[in-house]
Amino acid sequence: MGGHDDSDGGVVRLRDVAAYAGVSSGTVSNTINHPDRVRPHTRKLVNDAITALGYVPNQQARMLMGVTSEVIGLVVLDVESPFYMETAHAIERAVRRSGQVVMLSTSEGDLEREAALLRVLAAQGVRGAMLAPSTADIDTSRYRALPRALPVILLDFDGGPTHCSVSVDNYEGGRLAVRHLLDRGHTDLAYISGPAHIRQFADRAKGARAELRAQGRDPDRHLIEVSSPGIGIRDGQAAAERLLEGRRPTGVLCGNDMIAFGAYRAFVAAGLRVPEDVAIIGYDDIDVAKDWIVPMSTIRQPIDELGTIAARLMIDHSSGDPDHVHEQVVLRPELVARRSTGG
Amino acid sequence: MGGHDDSDGGVVRLRDVAAYAGVSSGTVSNTINHPDRVRPHTRKLVNDAITALGYVPNQQARMLMGVTSEVIGLVVLDVESPFYMETAHAIERAVRRSGQVVMLSTSEGDLEREAALLRVLAAQGVRGAMLAPSTADIDTSRYRALPRALPVILLDFDGGPTHCSVSVDNYEGGRLAVRHLLDRGHTDLAYISGPAHIRQFADRAKGARAELRAQGRDPDRHLIEVSSPGIGIRDGQAAAERLLEGRRPTGVLCGNDMIAFGAYRAFVAAGLRVPEDVAIIGYDDIDVAKDWIVPMSTIRQPIDELGTIAARLMIDHSSGDPDHVHEQVVLRPELVARRSTGG
Repeated sequence: MGGHDDSDGGVVRLRDVAAYAGVSSGTVSNTINHPDRVRPHTRKLVNDAITALGYVPNQQARMLMGVTSEVIGLVVLDVESPFYMETAHAIERAVRRSGQVVMLSTSEGDLEREAALLRVLAAQGVRGAMLAPSTADIDTSRYRALPRALPVILLDFDGGPTHCSVSVDNYEGGRLAVRHLLDRGHTDLAYISGPAHIRQFADRAKGARAELRAQGRDPDRHLIEVSSPGIGIRDGQAAAERLLEGRRPTGVLCGNDMIAFGAYRAFVAAGLRVPEDVAIIGYDDIDVAKDWIVPMSTIRQPIDELGTIAARLMIDHSSGDPDHVHEQVVLRPELVARRSTGG
Repeated sequence: MGGHDDSDGGVVRLRDVAAYAGVSSGTVSNTINHPDRVRPHTRKLVNDAITALGYVPNQQARMLMGVTSEVIGLVVLDVESPFYMETAHAIERAVRRSGQVVMLSTSEGDLEREAALLRVLAAQGVRGAMLAPSTADIDTSRYRALPRALPVILLDFDGGPTHCSVSVDNYEGGRLAVRHLLDRGHTDLAYISGPAHIRQFADRAKGARAELRAQGRDPDRHLIEVSSPGIGIRDGQAAAERLLEGRRPTGVLCGNDMIAFGAYRAFVAAGLRVPEDVAIIGYDDIDVAKDWIVPMSTIRQPIDELGTIAARLMIDHSSGDPDHVHEQVVLRPELVARRSTGG
């Protein structure tokens, strides 16, 4: 319990909660011990104050929570995304070495649900939480209002100096993918993105455009951009079918590997050969990518390293060290050239 | 808190813990409030008693735990298995309707780790846990020793009358797969199972053999059985490569869809056509099965229904109703015929 924030002021007391909520100490006590005697509105004020300040009622409760202090909460966007599941597995392997367990929950990209999950984790007294934020918004000020009792690190997201974070350079990944397609002789390119509001997909698009410019080509002429409604195979297939209605690209980069599989299906169904007629490159290097029927070129995210570093940051950040300084680690993605782009 | 077990005796008190552990009440109190004053061996005795009896120190702690009582723990074997992830997603959708959240953790098939996770969930005061047991052992007596404070239902596993459970009939699934291959004219069959110690795979083999016998064919002559070392694509591919060294089957049933994808790769690499030279049928009907390059025939497990029923059983079982009777729901799998077996 207790992140570095405790170093400045010591234990939060009942009267601090009362002051924060603007009620008497007796009301706080009643909210805790006899919630039925307190009006719902007031109860909410007090409970919000308890959460905001990370107040823990008493020593026995602390003990009880101690049992769960080796739990690390992991909040991701989607339990069906192979990238997040492989990352969760890597984190689990890494934290197990220090005797901890991971409990995973999903925000479904919903900000309110995300906030509720963080409150639940704080109430459970877990050691800390790893959060893959459900927003593309670069303003992370709302994460500053997290419960003081819950050390949070950001996963797959660089939130700047106010948070520990580990992420992979998506801009660089977009550049790598375009450079590879240009190297293979393709100049009519398309980018099939995931949902446009997800920051990672947007950053890859910026990198793709930058690489074209760096090689003297106008992105507006050489890169068609479409976004798929979701991150699964069917989504990618639908987006690729739309793409085929217009000017046909010969090189296609995709927001993730599942979208790339869907694009593959659409192109083959339209009578195109991969890679002879159209080259495809995915993103993530999930397990199935190398085992896809035409092994899929992709931009590998260093998932094991992501897990190991997340585990280390979590332990550092939740250790209570008063000299703790937030650390932002940005990993580099890597090109994996396979048959879908001619190897 | 408090499952149906509480109906017989009321609240567990400090003196009950002392009696169970064979120590004085003072020692229990010290273990809770000043653990450093108690010898490790004694502390373990007391903590084991606290867990076994589901003792909750005091009313404030109960209140604190109340915050997390809308959490349902889900313990599965493997976070990278698509079947479990899709099931987790279905459960999440179902419990969300009643305002609860799921927190997922994995036992990795390790009994000790599974027990530790259940203790952590009990200590967190979650509403209950859904457990996909990490054993093929039909003797579930060890699950009777679960913390009283933690209502547990069994998932994808029929543990008999001592537990609520929801599972899918694997024996029937094995019969369906073999019947389909026989219907398609195949009599030289092979079963590529997952790891042999997992009960689900063994039950499917029993069903496969039973169907052959029912149709007047000797399983020892018509069914080659190999087991793959794991449940992924590479595992299935390796097992299928081994299979190709001996007498070649024309119809292959697989322990799951991932193994079937691996078998597909091995057969194609060996110059065989699917389904012309060899028909393949998977198991589970994970999302990718219909989108595999040759759409994969499979035995569908009713994942949405599994999730809905698990959510209902969890709520019934954790409601504290003294008349609660454990319910075992067994769902029926369903044949999905696609191109990999000729449609």
